[in-house]
Amino acid sequence: MNDTAYFDNAATTFPKPEEVYVFMDKFYRECGVNVGRGQHKLASKASALVAETRKLLLNLNHCPNKVVTFTSSATEALNIILRGVICKDNLNIYLSPFEHNAVTRVIHYLSSAFKLNIHTLAFEKETFKYNLEKIKYQFTDNSPDILAVSHASNVYGIVAPIEEICALSKNYNAVNIIDMCQTMGLLDTNLNNQNIDYSVFAAHKTLYGAVGLGGFISDSSAKLNPLLFGGTGVDSANQTMPDSVPERYEVGSPNIMAIAGLNAALKWNRHIGIKNIFEKDQMNRTRLLSLLQDYENIKVIAPIDGIGVVSCVFENYGSDNIGHILSEYNIAVRTGLHCSPQAHKFYNTFPAGTVRFSTSYFNKDEDFKRLEEALDFICENS
Amino acid sequence: MNDTAYFDNAATTFPKPEEVYVFMDKFYRECGVNVGRGQHKLASKASALVAETRKLLLNLNHCPNKVVTFTSSATEALNIILRGVICKDNLNIYLSPFEHNAVTRVIHYLSSAFKLNIHTLAFEKETFKYNLEKIKYQFTDNSPDILAVSHASNVYGIVAPIEEICALSKNYNAVNIIDMCQTMGLLDTNLNNQNIDYSVFAAHKTLYGAVGLGGFISDSSAKLNPLLFGGTGVDSANQTMPDSVPERYEVGSPNIMAIAGLNAALKWNRHIGIKNIFEKDQMNRTRLLSLLQDYENIKVIAPIDGIGVVSCVFENYGSDNIGHILSEYNIAVRTGLHCSPQAHKFYNTFPAGTVRFSTSYFNKDEDFKRLEEALDFICENS
Repeated sequence: MNDTAYFDNAATTFPKPEEVYVFMDKFYRECGVNVGRGQHKLASKASALVAETRKLLLNLNHCPNKVVTFTSSATEALNIILRGVICKDNLNIYLSPFEHNAVTRVIHYLSSAFKLNIHTLAFEKETFKYNLEKIKYQFTDNSPDILAVSHASNVYGIVAPIEEICALSKNYNAVNIIDMCQTMGLLDTNLNNQNIDYSVFAAHKTLYGAVGLGGFISDSSAKLNPLLFGGTGVDSANQTMPDSVPERYEVGSPNIMAIAGLNAALKWNRHIGIKNIFEKDQMNRTRLLSLLQDYENIKVIAPIDGIGVVSCVFENYGSDNIGHILSEYNIAVRTGLHCSPQAHKFYNTFPAGTVRFSTSYFNKDEDFKRLEEALDFICENS
Repeated sequence: MNDTAYFDNAATTFPKPEEVYVFMDKFYRECGVNVGRGQHKLASKASALVAETRKLLLNLNHCPNKVVTFTSSATEALNIILRGVICKDNLNIYLSPFEHNAVTRVIHYLSSAFKLNIHTLAFEKETFKYNLEKIKYQFTDNSPDILAVSHASNVYGIVAPIEEICALSKNYNAVNIIDMCQTMGLLDTNLNNQNIDYSVFAAHKTLYGAVGLGGFISDSSAKLNPLLFGGTGVDSANQTMPDSVPERYEVGSPNIMAIAGLNAALKWNRHIGIKNIFEKDQMNRTRLLSLLQDYENIKVIAPIDGIGVVSCVFENYGSDNIGHILSEYNIAVRTGLHCSPQAHKFYNTFPAGTVRFSTSYFNKDEDFKRLEEALDFICENS
């Protein structure tokens, strides 16, 4: 039995819904074969599961006419997209102040090949809000070619108004890329529009599926240069990658086990209801905030609204130190930079980082009680 | 219950050892967290599992001082390696006649950026043997810079004498890359030498682990340009990828579930013994060959020795057609080009392809009996 009070859900949600464990095990035992690469009955069953999972994911995002591309991770998806669209000099690239290394390291690499103009979207530090008026002026001054924004910051839980921002940048025909790793399945988002070109997801985070699977939602016309080359199970005689989407991006054996996990997770999401999942998230967040804000030596860096991902700094303690003490109480958090150094620089928590508490649908009363006990100990002794 | 007679093990071994299913489910339920990205107890336990799995894999290959890099697939591993080493004009690249699209499509792509001289290693069609004498002359005429060889062909089961070939090419300081997807865990191979630079594996094939995990074994000094950029959980402040191996190649959340599967699979391999696994493979192969060779309208394309991956052509039937008929008997095979069009061109089975039967440790008597029944039906009616 797992008796950890787990507040590291922004890294990966844990535990998963029971249905996810059960179905992954069952499907991989019964039908753990290679999809689309054989015409036997098991292969057909596996192919049907993949098709159904794509459909469930599109339905969740209200965009039945778009296409799901599965990759091994959100990182791979972001590499495919960013390296596909950033392919010449003098592009104006707009980022939020909170981008993950899966975005910024790719762009840093590309900046060695191309002369890129990187802009940071206007954001008001004090109110934790994107400043849409200023962003309009930014776009007028330097018309956006590419925009990459985390729907929610993995450090501070700040949610970006992606519809508004993407509508503004689309006036300049920008390519809009949204990193939904911390939001898909949690925030009810309508992707049935032409303003958002690429929506990236990680199956193992807010979607409550398994690790080893990510991808993106796009139009079928979204044809970038592939990043990985190899077997696709279709058009095998051709030495170039297939022209069709998603086949041109999906190389190697599909991860049928993780796809089964995502399938069960999406059915769980539909069963519980995304609004109820979000409501639970907000209850957890309120509880967490009121708990943390009780201690005067804890400085919480959080917007009034936001998702259940809360960063804070403890007076007189390094964040890693707090992580170790909490670990003694069997409380899991993540401390440091959270692979997002830019976000920490923005709020002056670099390089020491923060202690990040991130909740999930499965956090229990006892988790918060144990956290309170640990915080009492830490703050009394500081 | 699965009652398929499964002869598609070269695509993915199925079923897995019971231990693999049990341990994956158990570990992912108890400790399905993000490795190396938190210092809580579960993260430490997950990190220990990853370290142990690397060690087990090195021990299997008798090379405790080398390094395991985990990727999401063998395809990703081959992309990293080939694109890392093929980075200038006029390289002499030697391939076997049997390379998979995971090799040839990468090289095809690179040939648009660089002027490459592609050579095919001398191979005797009739005897199914690499001609080492001729290869020596090939190397004298055009000294090898890079060599990429499938340890065993995924179409014909032909095993390459990798030690001899790599020793020859190492005289010219070639970079030697061996694709062991069809052999690691099946052929007892000593990688404790400096002639083989990169040995690529897929966890879900002859290693009997789960899909979603691959990688390569190399020296720790093997520093290529990374292919994917993103979070590594270490040195996060740095916008370039870490300098150390394997960290510079391992981006995003490690696939702890598949690593748990490989861990259990490697312990299963050690428990059964690789020699016994190979012996079973050879028994299956003999049985398969003697069965297929019984029918005069089946033309088997197979070496005298080789692994349990056997291709054949049926007179008067397209290979896909045979696949469909076998499917009616609940027999799973793979027909067509097997993502290896070059191999089929070499033995003149292009573009129609072959019917490939591939066995595993778990094939049962009944599987062969059912196959015999189906073949009787097909061949009597042809």
